[in-house]
Amino acid sequence: MGRWPTGSRERLQGAALALFVERGYDETSVADIAARAGVTERTFYRHFGDKREVLFDGGHSLENAIVESLASCPPDLPPLDAIGQALDHAAARFFDDPRLPFARERQSVIGANPELQERESLKMTSLTAAVSRCLQTRGSDETTARLAAEMGIGVFKVAFACWVAPGNTEPLTTHLRESLTRLRRVAGQ
Amino acid sequence: MGRWPTGSRERLQGAALALFVERGYDETSVADIAARAGVTERTFYRHFGDKREVLFDGGHSLENAIVESLASCPPDLPPLDAIGQALDHAAARFFDDPRLPFARERQSVIGANPELQERESLKMTSLTAAVSRCLQTRGSDETTARLAAEMGIGVFKVAFACWVAPGNTEPLTTHLRESLTRLRRVAGQ
Repeated sequence: MGRWPTGSRERLQGAALALFVERGYDETSVADIAARAGVTERTFYRHFGDKREVLFDGGHSLENAIVESLASCPPDLPPLDAIGQALDHAAARFFDDPRLPFARERQSVIGANPELQERESLKMTSLTAAVSRCLQTRGSDETTARLAAEMGIGVFKVAFACWVAPGNTEPLTTHLRESLTRLRRVAGQ
Repeated sequence: MGRWPTGSRERLQGAALALFVERGYDETSVADIAARAGVTERTFYRHFGDKREVLFDGGHSLENAIVESLASCPPDLPPLDAIGQALDHAAARFFDDPRLPFARERQSVIGANPELQERESLKMTSLTAAVSRCLQTRGSDETTARLAAEMGIGVFKVAFACWVAPGNTEPLTTHLRESLTRLRRVAGQ
């Protein structure tokens, strides 16, 4: 047992997102978030460095999961196929259907705030760099690895946007596979 | 004639970059930059919103040039070929050899500072979105446009990194063409 209530991390995330949607990101303070979650500000800071980090909490886990999955792909699998498999695994683990409403709200908060867009863009840049390093460990030369990583994370971004789009009911894995097939077709034209 | 000396914008950019390299970005103030450039702080703020913007001044012109060039490509040119042509034109206009030392120093300053990396990542995200919108205007469906834009800007990022790499003497256009050819090969595997 920890010294603070179980689940306070998740409650803080839910409270923060609800407040960002209701009042706007800039108008919400850490004190507001802690109060809504029923914890102290000190508890907030035990879990998150600042209010922005509440929205980017999973970034590191996602990156690790993709890299681990990529590293365990058969070594003779071409780079883009390997990234496709790794993204599929990550989608099943982090972005299943029950998480779609949270992902949608998070995306709408980020879309309304340039500071958050910067942070999200950097997250994608870091993910691309991590995938590229991993491909090099698997034996790709640096340029091939970087280009494959750009394509793979490009597919992820496009598929993710389709997944959180209003009215979508298909799982992220379906969008990932369709986007990868389409990317190959566009590249071959 | 303006009310301030001709060329003060360029002097401020040169002074800022020199100071960022010498002292570090965080340790350099707007007052330092203005003093080094021999102008007042007020003159600095006539040209730039803050010290960060000195490094991102050309972002909007680059985006406009790429979009204009893309819009003037023959309508039957496949999306990735059209982006390739637009990037070639932009490279010749904004990133010729005399600008390589400036580009290298700028890249090293950005590489050392997470806040600047965020800004640079957002610049690339905005550029990708602008290219995607332009491809849709040319008749591509949204998913094709987004994927082609991700690939095209991916090629630009990889080629740009090759161009500013220590020891490189090839022009950016050469790296752009090689990266695009390689990307197509990797996508076809």
